[in-house]
Amino acid sequence: MAKDKKEIKALIEKLKGLKTENMYLNDFFHTWKETDDEIAAVFTVAEILRGMRENNISTKVFDSGLGISVFRDNSTRTRFSFASACNLLGLEVQDLDEKLSQIAHGETVRETANMISFMADVIGIRDDMYIGKGHTYMKTVSEAVQEGYRDGVLEQRPTLVNLQCDIDHPTQSMADMLHVINYFGGVENLKGKKVAMTWAYSPSYGKPLSVPQGIIGLFTRFGMDVVLAHPEGYNVMSEVEEIAAENAKKSGGSYKRVNTMEEAFKDADIVYPKSWAPFAVMEERTKLVEEGKFDELKALEKRCLENNAKFKDWTCTEELMKTTKDGKALYMHCLPADISGVSCKEGEVDASVFDRYLVPLYKEASFKPYIIAAMIFLAKFSNPSGKLEEILEKGKKRIR
Amino acid sequence: MAKDKKEIKALIEKLKGLKTENMYLNDFFHTWKETDDEIAAVFTVAEILRGMRENNISTKVFDSGLGISVFRDNSTRTRFSFASACNLLGLEVQDLDEKLSQIAHGETVRETANMISFMADVIGIRDDMYIGKGHTYMKTVSEAVQEGYRDGVLEQRPTLVNLQCDIDHPTQSMADMLHVINYFGGVENLKGKKVAMTWAYSPSYGKPLSVPQGIIGLFTRFGMDVVLAHPEGYNVMSEVEEIAAENAKKSGGSYKRVNTMEEAFKDADIVYPKSWAPFAVMEERTKLVEEGKFDELKALEKRCLENNAKFKDWTCTEELMKTTKDGKALYMHCLPADISGVSCKEGEVDASVFDRYLVPLYKEASFKPYIIAAMIFLAKFSNPSGKLEEILEKGKKRIR
Amino acid sequence: MAKDKKEIKALIEKLKGLKTENMYLNDFFHTWKETDDEIAAVFTVAEILRGMRENNISTKVFDSGLGISVFRDNSTRTRFSFASACNLLGLEVQDLDEKLSQIAHGETVRETANMISFMADVIGIRDDMYIGKGHTYMKTVSEAVQEGYRDGVLEQRPTLVNLQCDIDHPTQSMADMLHVINYFGGVENLKGKKVAMTWAYSPSYGKPLSVPQGIIGLFTRFGMDVVLAHPEGYNVMSEVEEIAAENAKKSGGSYKRVNTMEEAFKDADIVYPKSWAPFAVMEERTKLVEEGKFDELKALEKRCLENNAKFKDWTCTEELMKTTKDGKALYMHCLPADISGVSCKEGEVDASVFDRYLVPLYKEASFKPYIIAAMIFLAKFSNPSGKLEEILEKGKKRIR
Repeated sequence: MAKDKKEIKALIEKLKGLKTENMYLNDFFHTWKETDDEIAAVFTVAEILRGMRENNISTKVFDSGLGISVFRDNSTRTRFSFASACNLLGLEVQDLDEKLSQIAHGETVRETANMISFMADVIGIRDDMYIGKGHTYMKTVSEAVQEGYRDGVLEQRPTLVNLQCDIDHPTQSMADMLHVINYFGGVENLKGKKVAMTWAYSPSYGKPLSVPQGIIGLFTRFGMDVVLAHPEGYNVMSEVEEIAAENAKKSGGSYKRVNTMEEAFKDADIVYPKSWAPFAVMEERTKLVEEGKFDELKALEKRCLENNAKFKDWTCTEELMKTTKDGKALYMHCLPADISGVSCKEGEVDASVFDRYLVPLYKEASFKPYIIAAMIFLAKFSNPSGKLEEILEKGKKRIR
Repeated sequence: MAKDKKEIKALIEKLKGLKTENMYLNDFFHTWKETDDEIAAVFTVAEILRGMRENNISTKVFDSGLGISVFRDNSTRTRFSFASACNLLGLEVQDLDEKLSQIAHGETVRETANMISFMADVIGIRDDMYIGKGHTYMKTVSEAVQEGYRDGVLEQRPTLVNLQCDIDHPTQSMADMLHVINYFGGVENLKGKKVAMTWAYSPSYGKPLSVPQGIIGLFTRFGMDVVLAHPEGYNVMSEVEEIAAENAKKSGGSYKRVNTMEEAFKDADIVYPKSWAPFAVMEERTKLVEEGKFDELKALEKRCLENNAKFKDWTCTEELMKTTKDGKALYMHCLPADISGVSCKEGEVDASVFDRYLVPLYKEASFKPYIIAAMIFLAKFSNPSGKLEEILEKGKKRIR
Repeated sequence: MAKDKKEIKALIEKLKGLKTENMYLNDFFHTWKETDDEIAAVFTVAEILRGMRENNISTKVFDSGLGISVFRDNSTRTRFSFASACNLLGLEVQDLDEKLSQIAHGETVRETANMISFMADVIGIRDDMYIGKGHTYMKTVSEAVQEGYRDGVLEQRPTLVNLQCDIDHPTQSMADMLHVINYFGGVENLKGKKVAMTWAYSPSYGKPLSVPQGIIGLFTRFGMDVVLAHPEGYNVMSEVEEIAAENAKKSGGSYKRVNTMEEAFKDADIVYPKSWAPFAVMEERTKLVEEGKFDELKALEKRCLENNAKFKDWTCTEELMKTTKDGKALYMHCLPADISGVSCKEGEVDASVFDRYLVPLYKEASFKPYIIAAMIFLAKFSNPSGKLEEILEKGKKRIR
C-alpha cells in the first residue's frame, strides 16, 4: 500500500505546477484564506512526506530549531500530531503550558509571544474555547512575532499553524478531506458526492463549532453537495455559512441547511454526525467568563444541557445509515466520539456503526501529523518541490 | 574502567552467537517470556552501548522518531531512564500524561494507543498500581498497535517496553542483574551464590509486588540459591513463585521461601530487603477502586498500615548484615529506600548500612537506561550485531 | 544587522586571546567567581553563536545528550531560554518537575542528582525562592554529580548553570550586560556611564533579590558608576554589596547606595527600576516556611504588602525619566514588569515609558538563550575557539 519512489516523484512533479509562493514565511489560519493551489499543495506535500516515511527516508530538514505548542485547551490527539509533525521535520517541541508559566500573572500576549520565539521556527496554537477569542489571540501572536522580527528582536519569524480556533480547525478538516480523497480514489471523484455534516446529541456541553465550520468551509470547494443539519438554535457562525455558499457556487457543488438528520442522511455519500454548542450559547458563555459570573455560567450550562436533551434522537443509528447511498456512506468523526452504550448512555452514534468504521476512522486521524508537517514545510521553504527532490535523491535513512 | 574498543568488539562477537530473531519487532513484557539467549543479548547490547558512550561514540540510530512514555504512576527515575535511553538512540520522548489528556474523558485504550502511535517507534509503559490491570493494559495497547499496523493505520508497529507492571519489572530486575554480573566479575561466577529477597518494613503502604517478583523470576535463572522471606500474609503471586521454582531447577540453583529475615540473610551473598504490599490486599484494593468505594479504601489502608507495623523488626540492620557471607553481602535496592532515621523514623534499612552501599546502589541504578536502550535496539534491528559493528567502525562522535 | 562571517571570524580571534581553561568541565554559579577573561569569553561566544544562527549555520555540537532543567519556581522565560540554548547545541531538554516526581516523597537531593544524570551533559537550576537555600541546593547537586563521576556511577560530569539562585542571577545580568554593550557600541564605551539600579513599587510581594544583586555584582566590573537606591529596610545582601564595592574599585568605577530614586536617576545613562523584597523579610519567610508556620507566613505577607504600599511613589515616571542623561537613559527590566494601569493599578513603571522601550526590552531578553548556550559551550569544550572555527568552516546549514 505504501507509495514507491516513482509515485513520490510524480507527486513532486504535481507540486511543481502549484503556486505556493504566498505560503512562504506565512501563517495558516483558515482554509478559506488559502487558494485552491495552496490547499492542493498541502495535500500533495502531506502525501509526499508520508510516502517518504513509509520508504524509511528521513525528512529532517531542520538540524535544530523549536516548534512551540500553545494549548489553551487539553488535547491528546492534536498535541501528539503536532509533536509528530515537528519531529518528522527535525524540530523539538516545547510546550507553553499556561498553568505552569507566568502568563497567568498578567504577562501580555505580545510580550510572551516574543519571549518564547527566540529560537522558534513554528508556533502551533489551539484556542477554541471562547467565541471571538481564539482567532484574535492567534492574530495577536502572529503580529507580535512579525514585529519582533522586523525590529531585530527575533532572527527568524516563526510561522503559525492554527491547531483549532473558534472559527476553523484546518488541520482537522484537511486531514478529513485527505482521507476522503484517498477513500474515493482521487479528488476528481468527489464532484456530486453528498456530504451530511450534522449535529448529534452528546451528554456533554459546549463542544467547539470549529469542526462543523471547518468541514462546510472546506468540503464545499470540491464540487460536492454539502448539507448542514442541526436542531433549531444550534446555528454555526453565519460568516462561515456564507463562505460555504460561495465556495459551493464556484466549485459547481451546493450548500444548504436542513432541519432534520433524516433529510441530511438521505442518499449521502459521507456522513459526519457530531455534537456542538449553539453559537449564541458560546457567545453568552464567553461573556459570562469575561465578567467572572460563574454562578450564571453554571445556570447556562444546566439550561444548555436540558436543551440538548430534547434532541436525543439526533443520533447516528443503523436505521439512518441504511438510508444513505447504498446504505454505506462513509462515516466520519474527529474523535473522540460519544458512543451510545459505550462512552455514555446516549450519544452521537450507535456502537455498531462506530465499530464498523473503526479502521477508516483511525486512518482519517492518521493524516493529521502529515497535514501539519506539510503546512510547516510550505511555510519554511521557498522552493518546496526542489527541497523534496533533494531529500528523495539523497535518500537518507530515518532508521539507519 | 571504561571499556576500550577491543572489548566492545569482543562483546559484539559474543552477541553474534546469540539467537535474537524473535525479539525483532516484538515487545518486552516479562523476563520469563524471553529465552536465555535473549536475556544474554539484552545484557550484551547494554554493555556495548555503555562502552560506546564511554568512548564518545554516538549510537543515534534513529534520525527522527518518537518514544512515547505512558506513566500511570509517578516516577522520576524510570522517566529519566526511559528518556535517556530514547535520546541515546535518537528518539524524542513524548509523554502521555493522562491527567493532561482526553483519556480521562472516556477514550478507550485501543483508540488512544493508535492516536499516539502515528510516528512512535517505541512505547514505554509503567502501570503497576493495580493487580490484574497493568499487564492487561499493556497487552491491549500492544494488540491495538499491531492491528493498527495490519490495517494500514500505522506505518510502523511501535514496540512496547514494560517499564513496570503489576507482575514484573524487567528493566529493574535486569539492571539489578547486570550490576550483580559486574560486581561478581561475570555471569560464570554466580552459580551457588545465595540471594535473599526479603520483605522489609516501611511506614508507607501499597508498594508494588513487581520488584520482588521480578527478582525471583530472573535471578533463579543463573544457578543461584534464591530465598524469598516475608511475614505471614505478604505473599507474592503464586504463578511467579512457580516460575522461580522451575527456573531454579533448570539452572541448577534453588528457590525457597522462608519465614524470617534472619534465615534469609544467613550466609547470603546478596540481600535485597524491600517493602511490598500483600497480594491479597492489592487485590482487594483494586476491587475497591473499581467499585469507587473510597471509604472502604481508607479503612483498608489503615488496616494494612496497622498490620505492617507489627513487623517493624523486619529491617536491614548492621547486626543482620554481619550474619551474611563474610559479613559483607552486596546490599541492593531499587531506590528510593525508606532509611531509618533519615527518610522515616523506622524503615527498611539502617542508615549506616545504606550509606556504606551508596556507590554500589547508584551503580546498580546506572544500568537501567542501557537496559532499556538495549531492549529497544534488539526490537528494532533485525541484525543487531551487524548494526553495532557498523556504528563502531563509523565512530561518529557524540560530543563532536 | 546580522554579523557576516568575517565579523564572526574576528570574534573567534578575540576568543583565542582569553584564558578560559578553568571553565572547562566547571559550573557557572556567580559572575563574581569568574575572571574578567571568563566573563568576556561568555559574551564573545554568545555573539559568535548568535552570528552563526543568523547565518543559518548549525551549531549542534552534541549528536545526543540531555540538558536537565530543574525549576523550583515557575518561569516561562527562563524555561524557554534554557530549552533554546540546549536545542541550539543539540541537547534535548528533560524537565525535572518536582511535583510530578518522587522527590516530594523524601528522596535526598544527592540521590536524585545522580539518578537524573546518567546521560546529562548539563543541569540548569532555578531556585530563588528562599534565602540561604538556592545556592546551597546547587552546590549540593554539583558535589553529588562530581562524586558520582569520580565513583564511576556517571560516565560524564554534567556541568551546572545557575538559572537564578537566592544570591545571583548570572544568565540575566549577563544578558542585560550584553544588551548594554551592544546598545552603547562596545564595552570600551561603558567607562563612566551611570547606572541606577533602583527598587520600585509593585503590588506583589517577595520578588527575589538576585536581580539587583546580579546587576550590582556584574555592572561594577566595567568602570561604570553604579548606584543602588531603595527605601529603608529594603537592603540586599551585604556580601554582594561588598563585592560590588571591590569590583568598582578595581575597574575604576564607583558603587554607592542612595536613599531616593530621584538621586539615583539624576543624569543616569541606564535605569533599572524593579521591585524586590527586603532581605530581612526573605530571611524570616524562609524560617517560617521551614517551620511550617503558615499562619505567621500570611501575617508576614500582609505586613510586607502594607509596608510596600508606603513606597508607591517609587515608580519610574516620565518626570523621572526626564531627569536622566539627556532625558533618555536606557530603561531596563528583566520582565515581566508591573506596569501602572496595565498589569496593575500602580506599579514599577509608567505605561508610556515602558512602551517606548519595548523593542530594547525585547532585545535585552533575546540575549539570554545565547548567554546560556555560551556558558554550556565553554564548560564542554577544552578548545572553544578551535571548535567554533571548525563549525564555521564546515558551515553545516541549520535549515537545510
